[in-house]
Amino acid sequence: MTIGSIFSKTSRTFHSYPSPSKLLLLCTLSGGGVVAYSEIQSDSGPPRIESNEPRKKRVVVLGTGWAGTSFLKDLDASIYDVQVVSPRNYFAFTPLLPSVTCGTVEARSIVEPVRNIIKKRKGEVKFWEAECVKIDAANKKVFCRSNIDANLVGSGEFSLEYDFLVVATGAQVNTFNTPGVKENCHFLKEVEDAQRIRTSVIDCFEKAILPSLTEEERQINLHFVIVGGGPTGVEFAAELHDYVHEDLSKLYPIAKDIVKITMIQSGDHILNMFDERISSFAEQKFRRDGIEVQTGCRVISVSDKEIKMKKKSTGEVCSIPHGLVVWSTGIGTIPVLREFMEQINQANRKVLQTDEWLRVTGCEAVYAIGDCASIHQRKIMDDISNIFKAADKDNSGTLTIKEFKDLMDDIILRYPQMELYLKSKHMLDVADLWKDPHGKEREEIDIEGFKSALCHVDSQMKSLPATAQVAAQQGAYLASCFNRMEQCTDLPEGPIRFRESGRHKFRPFRYKHFGQFAPLGGEQAAAELPGDWVSIGRSTQWLWYSVYASKQVSWRTRVLVVSDWTRRFIFGRDSSRI
Amino acid sequence: MTIGSIFSKTSRTFHSYPSPSKLLLLCTLSGGGVVAYSEIQSDSGPPRIESNEPRKKRVVVLGTGWAGTSFLKDLDASIYDVQVVSPRNYFAFTPLLPSVTCGTVEARSIVEPVRNIIKKRKGEVKFWEAECVKIDAANKKVFCRSNIDANLVGSGEFSLEYDFLVVATGAQVNTFNTPGVKENCHFLKEVEDAQRIRTSVIDCFEKAILPSLTEEERQINLHFVIVGGGPTGVEFAAELHDYVHEDLSKLYPIAKDIVKITMIQSGDHILNMFDERISSFAEQKFRRDGIEVQTGCRVISVSDKEIKMKKKSTGEVCSIPHGLVVWSTGIGTIPVLREFMEQINQANRKVLQTDEWLRVTGCEAVYAIGDCASIHQRKIMDDISNIFKAADKDNSGTLTIKEFKDLMDDIILRYPQMELYLKSKHMLDVADLWKDPHGKEREEIDIEGFKSALCHVDSQMKSLPATAQVAAQQGAYLASCFNRMEQCTDLPEGPIRFRESGRHKFRPFRYKHFGQFAPLGGEQAAAELPGDWVSIGRSTQWLWYSVYASKQVSWRTRVLVVSDWTRRFIFGRDSSRI
Repeated sequence: MTIGSIFSKTSRTFHSYPSPSKLLLLCTLSGGGVVAYSEIQSDSGPPRIESNEPRKKRVVVLGTGWAGTSFLKDLDASIYDVQVVSPRNYFAFTPLLPSVTCGTVEARSIVEPVRNIIKKRKGEVKFWEAECVKIDAANKKVFCRSNIDANLVGSGEFSLEYDFLVVATGAQVNTFNTPGVKENCHFLKEVEDAQRIRTSVIDCFEKAILPSLTEEERQINLHFVIVGGGPTGVEFAAELHDYVHEDLSKLYPIAKDIVKITMIQSGDHILNMFDERISSFAEQKFRRDGIEVQTGCRVISVSDKEIKMKKKSTGEVCSIPHGLVVWSTGIGTIPVLREFMEQINQANRKVLQTDEWLRVTGCEAVYAIGDCASIHQRKIMDDISNIFKAADKDNSGTLTIKEFKDLMDDIILRYPQMELYLKSKHMLDVADLWKDPHGKEREEIDIEGFKSALCHVDSQMKSLPATAQVAAQQGAYLASCFNRMEQCTDLPEGPIRFRESGRHKFRPFRYKHFGQFAPLGGEQAAAELPGDWVSIGRSTQWLWYSVYASKQVSWRTRVLVVSDWTRRFIFGRDSSRI
Repeated sequence: MTIGSIFSKTSRTFHSYPSPSKLLLLCTLSGGGVVAYSEIQSDSGPPRIESNEPRKKRVVVLGTGWAGTSFLKDLDASIYDVQVVSPRNYFAFTPLLPSVTCGTVEARSIVEPVRNIIKKRKGEVKFWEAECVKIDAANKKVFCRSNIDANLVGSGEFSLEYDFLVVATGAQVNTFNTPGVKENCHFLKEVEDAQRIRTSVIDCFEKAILPSLTEEERQINLHFVIVGGGPTGVEFAAELHDYVHEDLSKLYPIAKDIVKITMIQSGDHILNMFDERISSFAEQKFRRDGIEVQTGCRVISVSDKEIKMKKKSTGEVCSIPHGLVVWSTGIGTIPVLREFMEQINQANRKVLQTDEWLRVTGCEAVYAIGDCASIHQRKIMDDISNIFKAADKDNSGTLTIKEFKDLMDDIILRYPQMELYLKSKHMLDVADLWKDPHGKEREEIDIEGFKSALCHVDSQMKSLPATAQVAAQQGAYLASCFNRMEQCTDLPEGPIRFRESGRHKFRPFRYKHFGQFAPLGGEQAAAELPGDWVSIGRSTQWLWYSVYASKQVSWRTRVLVVSDWTRRFIFGRDSSRI
């Protein structure tokens, strides 16, 4: 009972000190990995609101994905009355979803209950597991409905009033209205999707090797098709290939040579948002691995047995039988936001439009972050006269280089494309802008000269990709704005308002790109790092492991994910159909 | 990259030596537990059958539960052509199912793919994931159907011919035809059941705390009812209580005081198959924990909102509203066996009847093990004249004590109740049986005297409980018979055939009881150990941990279960609704 009593003591220690900070040293000495960590937990009981205080502003947050959770993690909830509504009571570390499809990582290792996250914040945050079914911006109200279909008593419908609404509901899969996709394809957006794919892959194998099947039927059932050559699709294909060749081939020997994986991509290359070197490395690796990549093909329809597609170059239509199709292309708008966008005259847009401060255009007190929104960056040419006027302090009708330089910081803050333009033209000094078309320096320029000097700046405008990184940064940015709302009203920190007087309350949101990974299977990965760096190979996979472990939302998930990886190294992936 | 390269090296080592035996030292130094182990894996490729060998006898095994898996683990598959049919491609360690309902242990930690288990055996074993839909004993055939409902091509129906059939399909829940049970209750027999309960418990909490519910509605949704006070029901109630008070109460503070757990038991006590001390300890502990135990109540019907029951003593009928009901009482026959039993004239029985060698009564070459079967022990009084005749070697018409003693070993082997009877009467010597009714010793007895001496022996006959322990022992016993089939045909090792000449081929199956556990929550457990020992408390829980860890079917599940327990100690149970 020696081990028993140590455990028992440890357990008591944990249970008797629930609230003070805990210091744990957990040594997981499996396969050489040592993880040591400490967890600081805040007080357990949330402070109650005193009734004689002035009423706090009500903030309602919709969604608990990357954007919503990042907002909640950084928000000082003690200065607001915060309520969160989400159909899922957990946050999921979505970049690991492809790993969940094959059991490299368990579904539960990448989720953390939202209540656990908000419990550790300052102030009280209320969470309701429900779906938002309607946003009534005119009356500052959202209508919600519980998504639990169990036979429980009580109405699951309720409404919440807000002073500020933060929309972070994410996006849904875009099927581009292709017939049969919804019914016959797997998606890879939610944890449940990944779990379903895992079971279905095993189903394909179990069915394929039954004694009653012909060789051709076996081949069809073991034909896995992935539509979309983006990072998710590529990672899934790579994971599936590893799963089949490292684990399943040992248990289903006769199936090993029959399995076929096909990737269908509408563009000319897979991973085409990455550097060309990565994209061609991935294609070569897939060719060596026997994963067929069909580029330049558009899927026309999907039935339960076949997928029909059209070769873009020749117009030729062909159809291939399949055992399982995973659809991983593009994002679409969820119905409640579609209706909301009609309300606020954004019906013709794909996603909610916000300004650079993440405020929904045409709608007061509503903010949108993450995949459900895109920032409308103001063009410098739209405000060119106002900028000229603001810079021309002596009202001379012409601008000196000094007058322009004085305003440069504000211009770059307000129009980030200016900085990109200077960089792209290798202009080290703003004075270079001042040169006339023949390269001669000028003392002063008038409005027309100013316009022609800046006319190409807006070509550097870029919209942000729908990634976890963008969403998380938006959430954190918005939380910092909310935390300093009062302070920044008194002392605005943003750039000059060119069209009006004064300054903007906050600096606009600026995205900082930290790079992007594409795991390619066989312990190899590719990464695009900041500064045009590209890294490919085995060491990149180890970089991937460390980055993904460090980015976990809690120590619990971090330990679970690392131990899942270790387990996979030692025992392989599990193939039980549960 | 130091840690990286160690990992990477380890990984390569594992991948480059797939077939030779592996020796791993895995030190899990978490909370003080040290696990060190070595895994020996057999050759990866199963040997092919040579075509010029005489045809091997075909063994078909139905089911991969405790009985089936234990049979497969011990069977020498090289001397038979073995095929296994089961609707689940994994073996589940069912005694940990109650732990899965609350996330103390993850579902995947208690399952092991059947293919992994059979891969390590000598000889080739084929596995088909399918349900047996019909047993045709007359033609020695079983008909099977794949239970995969995905849209995959090929017929899932096939039939297998056998020389020996081993039925180990287990049992299903017995609802005693109570209306509404199937529709409105959760069961606790399969891994999926446990997963569903886990999600439903979270649903109850999430629904209960929505702002739109009244206090009464909250109470109803958080009322958990368990029908059946057996070990499974009691363990689930205890787990649920711990889950609520150790973990959920921190995340749902307002729900803590509303939660109510009720256990309904038809008998007078819960755990009534255990020693009385355990049963009353459990009742006291539940009372202290606030778990209401309603004994002597029979459930009449269950609706989606209410459960109606009758107090046996008073006949009074009452109904209580509930949020979730778990039904955990008794076992019933699965449909395919019901039909088979009609074929072989066992229609009026509850489970398949076998003889002491586990052969199905009235059916050649069919064996039944585990929960789907019960052994019909022959009565000594039915064979009394034959026994007398066999013992009376000199045909004198009377038996001396010596003649009887010579046969005693065979009698005890054939009629185990004899041994129990001698023990229960505290008879140290068989000669005590020989005494006349007044306690005087006799030289010889005739048939009538013999009959009256043994007339109470059969009262000691006991049927075996439907437990994992019994099933596993039956599987192992049957495998050892199959392995020595040829050898024992030449040299029979069983007892004398009293009704015919010669000896039985094998010794009959004898169950050895190693004790039974009942975890009661709060790190306390009760155990009934062999030899009328009872152990209750915290140390028993540690005994439980070590026994259950050691009994795992593979090193993978052992490591996973132990790390799940460790995780629970450190981080608590997860409450994400997935």
